[in-house]
This record gives sequence, structure tokens and C-alpha cells, in this order.
Amino acid sequence: MDSSSLLIRSARPEDVHAVYQLIRELAEYERAPQEVSNSPERMLAEGFGREENWFGCAVAELQGEVIGMAIWYFRYSTWKGRCLYLEDFYVKPEHRRAGIGAQMFEYVLAYGKEQQCSRLVWQVLEWNEPAIRFYQKYNSHLDPEWLNGSISLEP
Amino acid sequence: MDSSSLLIRSARPEDVHAVYQLIRELAEYERAPQEVSNSPERMLAEGFGREENWFGCAVAELQGEVIGMAIWYFRYSTWKGRCLYLEDFYVKPEHRRAGIGAQMFEYVLAYGKEQQCSRLVWQVLEWNEPAIRFYQKYNSHLDPEWLNGSISLEP
Repeated sequence: MDSSSLLIRSARPEDVHAVYQLIRELAEYERAPQEVSNSPERMLAEGFGREENWFGCAVAELQGEVIGMAIWYFRYSTWKGRCLYLEDFYVKPEHRRAGIGAQMFEYVLAYGKEQQCSRLVWQVLEWNEPAIRFYQKYNSHLDPEWLNGSISLEP
Repeated sequence: MDSSSLLIRSARPEDVHAVYQLIRELAEYERAPQEVSNSPERMLAEGFGREENWFGCAVAELQGEVIGMAIWYFRYSTWKGRCLYLEDFYVKPEHRRAGIGAQMFEYVLAYGKEQQCSRLVWQVLEWNEPAIRFYQKYNSHLDPEWLNGSISLEP
């Protein structure tokens, strides 16, 4: 890889289809493609085009192609105050092992510090060993003690 | 309990000390009191007093005393769109088994629907059997497959 052509940058409205494609790829890897009921149009309205966005997004661009993305928003921990939550984080398989994920992760860590968050937090599937190995390279803590609860509010 | 004197209402700035006390009680029950590095002053600035609050809060008031609380904020699921996340949810032990938790939970569910969230989501400790039994009364899904990751961003 000619790493000089790699660009980590804020996502723009015209990236929404590429980002949505990466979200779908990640959901397939996470064995839950049927769970994706979002759409590029909705994401454009909710995160790329609003005055007050519901999420933030950065992309990794290599030779003009979007090959990775990070999506985040703020959480509020009653214990720790404001945290940055990394909702989605993905690099296309054919571009892995070249340090692109690490560059994107550093970008997100820097953003969280700049926004005066006390923590960067995320979730990882317990069987996702490559991702767990990645996070373990950092001074991170992985906690299996919590169950995720959800109730649909859809009519 | 004279249930007619129970009031579920939005928290006001003057509730912050009572709410913070309940957060500490809940953290003790969750065997992590040492993890609470927030403060009433910070919560007042970040959630009760700002134009754009970082979290929302309702309290259960019985005969003028705050005996329960719910704290929430919005999340953005790339799969499901906007969700309401229930960060903390607590009723003092001496006031349990009287339906107060159910009334507060219904209040939060109604708020999530009003805000057009697709899901109410939360986390529960895997050994917290009374809470798990409570959530199982609803049409909820509890998923043990995800690990919680975190990295401190504090200097």
C-alpha cells in the first residue's frame, strides 16, 4: 500500500452510500444482516445533513475509494460523565494488516480527548477474536459482565 | 403505600443531590462504588442546567421524597436508527414490590415512543436476577454476546 495516499477524514454527504455498504458488510460479518433496518436516506437525514447530527462519522479513503469507516456518538455515564461511544468501526478485509484500523482508532481517540470525554467505549462480539486482539493492543478493558437489553418501540 | 401520592415527573435542578445519592446506591448494589467519579455539581451542569442536556432524568416522588430515578439519553444504532438508552434505573429497596419500577419503566417507554425511537435499550449485570426478572415481564430481549470495551481518555 502506498500509505501516503491514505486519508482519514470526516464523512461528507456524498459518502453515505459507501458508508452504508460498509455497515452492511460489518453486519454480515457479525452474523446479523437481517437486523439492519436503516437506510442511506435515513442516515443522510440523521447524521450527515442535520444541523445537530445524531452521530459522527469518519472514513478511510484510499486512492479515492472509501475502504473503512468509524461511527460514533456521545454517551453519558452516571459514573464517568461524558463518553465517546464507537458504534461501528470497520476496514474492508482486503485492506487489513496495513495499519489503517490503528490510524482510524487513533483518530477517534484524539476526537474523544478533544471533546473532553472521560472514556472511549464500544462493544465487541465475544467471538470476534481479531477485533479483540486489536483492542487488546491498547490499554483497554473488556468486560463480559453486562447483558444488552432491548425492547422494540415500533408500532 | 398510598399510591395516589406517587408522582413520576421530570427531574428539576433541586433534585440533583437526591438523584446522585440514588446513583451511588445503585453503584454500591452493582459492586462498583469506587467507579463513580462524577459529582452532583457536574451532573447539574451537564444534565439539569444546560440548554442542550447530555442526559434526561425522571424521578419517582413519594410524599415529597425522591425514592427512584431513571436516567436516559439517545443512542444511534447503525442497524436500527435512533434508540433511547436507559442508563440508570433505580427504586430504593424499601419501596420495591409496589409497582413503582413498572410505572417508571412505562414512563420511559412512552417517552421513547414520543421521541420516535425504534428501541429502548439498556444493560443489566448478568447476576442481577431481580432486575432480569423485571425486564423479562416485558417483551424484551437480553443478549449476552457482546463485551463492553473501554479506554480511559483522562490525562
